[in-house]
Amino acid sequence: MELEENIEEKIEEFIKEKKYTELKALLKEMKSADISAILDDLNKEEAVIVFRLLSKEKAGMTFSYMETDMREKLIQNLTDSELKSVLDELFMDDTVDLIEEMPSNVVTRILRTVNRNDRKIINELLKYPDDSAGSVMTTEFIDLRENMTIEQALDRIRKIGTDSETIYTCYVLDKDRILKGIIDIKDILLAKEDSLIHDLMETNIISVNTLEDQEEVAKAFDKYDLYALPVVDNENRLVGIITVDDAMDVLQEEVDEDFNKMAAISPTEDGYFETSVFKHAKSRIVWLLVLMLSSAITGAIITNYENAFAAVPVLVAFIPMIMGTGGNCGSQSSTLIIRGLATDELELKDVFKILWKEIRVAVIVGVILALVNGLRIFIQYDSLQLAVTIGLSITVTIIMAKSIGCLLPLLAKKLKLDPAIMAAPLISTIVDILSILIFFQIATLIMGL
Amino acid sequence: MELEENIEEKIEEFIKEKKYTELKALLKEMKSADISAILDDLNKEEAVIVFRLLSKEKAGMTFSYMETDMREKLIQNLTDSELKSVLDELFMDDTVDLIEEMPSNVVTRILRTVNRNDRKIINELLKYPDDSAGSVMTTEFIDLRENMTIEQALDRIRKIGTDSETIYTCYVLDKDRILKGIIDIKDILLAKEDSLIHDLMETNIISVNTLEDQEEVAKAFDKYDLYALPVVDNENRLVGIITVDDAMDVLQEEVDEDFNKMAAISPTEDGYFETSVFKHAKSRIVWLLVLMLSSAITGAIITNYENAFAAVPVLVAFIPMIMGTGGNCGSQSSTLIIRGLATDELELKDVFKILWKEIRVAVIVGVILALVNGLRIFIQYDSLQLAVTIGLSITVTIIMAKSIGCLLPLLAKKLKLDPAIMAAPLISTIVDILSILIFFQIATLIMGL
Repeated sequence: MELEENIEEKIEEFIKEKKYTELKALLKEMKSADISAILDDLNKEEAVIVFRLLSKEKAGMTFSYMETDMREKLIQNLTDSELKSVLDELFMDDTVDLIEEMPSNVVTRILRTVNRNDRKIINELLKYPDDSAGSVMTTEFIDLRENMTIEQALDRIRKIGTDSETIYTCYVLDKDRILKGIIDIKDILLAKEDSLIHDLMETNIISVNTLEDQEEVAKAFDKYDLYALPVVDNENRLVGIITVDDAMDVLQEEVDEDFNKMAAISPTEDGYFETSVFKHAKSRIVWLLVLMLSSAITGAIITNYENAFAAVPVLVAFIPMIMGTGGNCGSQSSTLIIRGLATDELELKDVFKILWKEIRVAVIVGVILALVNGLRIFIQYDSLQLAVTIGLSITVTIIMAKSIGCLLPLLAKKLKLDPAIMAAPLISTIVDILSILIFFQIATLIMGL
Repeated sequence: MELEENIEEKIEEFIKEKKYTELKALLKEMKSADISAILDDLNKEEAVIVFRLLSKEKAGMTFSYMETDMREKLIQNLTDSELKSVLDELFMDDTVDLIEEMPSNVVTRILRTVNRNDRKIINELLKYPDDSAGSVMTTEFIDLRENMTIEQALDRIRKIGTDSETIYTCYVLDKDRILKGIIDIKDILLAKEDSLIHDLMETNIISVNTLEDQEEVAKAFDKYDLYALPVVDNENRLVGIITVDDAMDVLQEEVDEDFNKMAAISPTEDGYFETSVFKHAKSRIVWLLVLMLSSAITGAIITNYENAFAAVPVLVAFIPMIMGTGGNCGSQSSTLIIRGLATDELELKDVFKILWKEIRVAVIVGVILALVNGLRIFIQYDSLQLAVTIGLSITVTIIMAKSIGCLLPLLAKKLKLDPAIMAAPLISTIVDILSILIFFQIATLIMGL
């Protein structure tokens, strides 16, 4: 499975020694995804040499896997006819992705190169909002008619199949291009030649509107085990399809986004190395500032109890433990709830069931941690008062932390915000404030400060 | 896209009023995935009624989407012949999954019900380790021979297609069942009838060994945009295939696992509600205990500086801010690195490139946060000494936190551990200890305590 490390060295060697015949033979044996990974690591001149040695079809495939900056460099070094042959091989959704990420001078060149009909389709596709079904769909699919026989359908598939992104599922349209049914290639192949498409097609169709959020689209693939999903406009006319490989990319993008939000990082579009140091700093500083200033509240509360820790200085030593345990418990609950909401396993209506479950878990966890810690403190400091103070504070903090950890993501969902913003960093900061209050309040009461 | 809320109520109403004809008609219009979601919410008696109204094929499909506990209840209420007809509809991988999750008395009944040949295959499949390619593959695929013509291949596809999980990709084997090539149904359909499979098949094949980790398998689907992946034994004999819907499930499982680990939760097999309160507590308490006891180290360090905060009590108020900012910065870096490693975007060999990038980001972020906070403190407390102490502590803490945040996941990878264990909770605890040391050391120096 692993790509051999030395293939990259071999390619660089062939380039250096101008062994182009050997290089071409090697490239022929390689997968486009692997070639693109290597191209991304080469310098511009080397990349152009390698790219020119690829067959027309493979060049297109390889191009569709490449990173933005290398694509741009490559395009600027290709002749118009080379560019045209790459664009011919790309499916519409890939061409549109390319246009969206290129600077305007490259876009002009691309639009000048494609034919008039494609240019019209591209301009239509560019109008769909980011992250909508319309923006990830492709317009190349097999369309059939209800009154076709299997034989006629097979003829049509053979005629337009080469240019379609998939022939696995075919779409049955009426004269107004309204989607009437879908039929799997398996059902076409297994049927008698004179059967009618109308009698074999599935009419209970899962489809999405062009404006549907791409995250919902990806979830539908996962839920219904789909290979392709038709995209229709408001009049139920079929305008495109989304294939499972694109849905998988969307799923990965959304997971990346959730991971970032949960670590208090604003979403970035590009990969780790392609994002500049300044962009990285920018995407991380906003939340850090907010959280840092919020922690001043915790600080102010502590100042309020100055007399308490002046009398019993050892209390200060337990601040990290109380705050840390509270933060960890809160982030455990919030992570489970955020992920459950993201995969549709949990729903808003389950709020009381979830809260009740979290409280019971919190009581068990809280009592055990309190006992372990209380015992340690009793042995170490020989003070029952201190042991009870810490034990009780931990239990109450954990119940509070788990309740907040599960409620805030649900509240965000209710307010139609992304639950992922209510993740570890924000929860920790809120839990910090409350746990310090709980801790000093309990200490003041029990130790009579 | 959203399933109408009232469909569930409608079904319950039909059951209560014994309107089975209407219920059957309604079910016929529904997708198996949606029916299974509703079945999971019904009680046992209702579920059996609904299940019996499904067509044979739909019953099998619906069953494959259902949750473990409802499957078990259902099986115990089906007659032997009903069970047999469900099992007949399941693909081998689903049958094996079912057997793995059922109690032994149900397993005995299942094995008694399937035919002898299937029993043999099932027993073979059960031998593959959990999380291996062998454990997720299915054995039902289209096998062709090199010397077949397209016409003969089509005949074979028509003959065995119904029982194959996919006909989209066909596999070319020799007489020893060694995998010689693959061919897409598109290429078969678009070729001339008398062409030979040998001349059309792709021989540059991506395949995996039965023992390959399922996570690597899922990554291959994502990387190469595959629809199906052949699984071979050590002699390169084809033993099964994995389809993209199963790969998507694996990807989601792995993401769930990473989310859990990053929130200091031990992995659990079942969903949120199916996991009992005690199991939830158990999966969360281990890390909490470890982290709680580690925070005693931070506490001990603080005790060490008792004289410092006895002299300047306001220092205590800044503990949450220093620790919180350090923890957040560390978890930002570790999350980016963990996710980058999980998606193969980042590699171990990039360690110095990553560290250098993180340090530069840390300097920018650190200086800005220090200035904002220093200014606030200078205005609020009118003490340049305090402002410089906090500002400098924050900058140094952030550089330390980001370095540790990126290095520890890479270290875990180097040690062949899962980088996800080096996530926010563990990083925070380590960063806590160091940030308190940095803070009090800088305070002691600058303020001359």
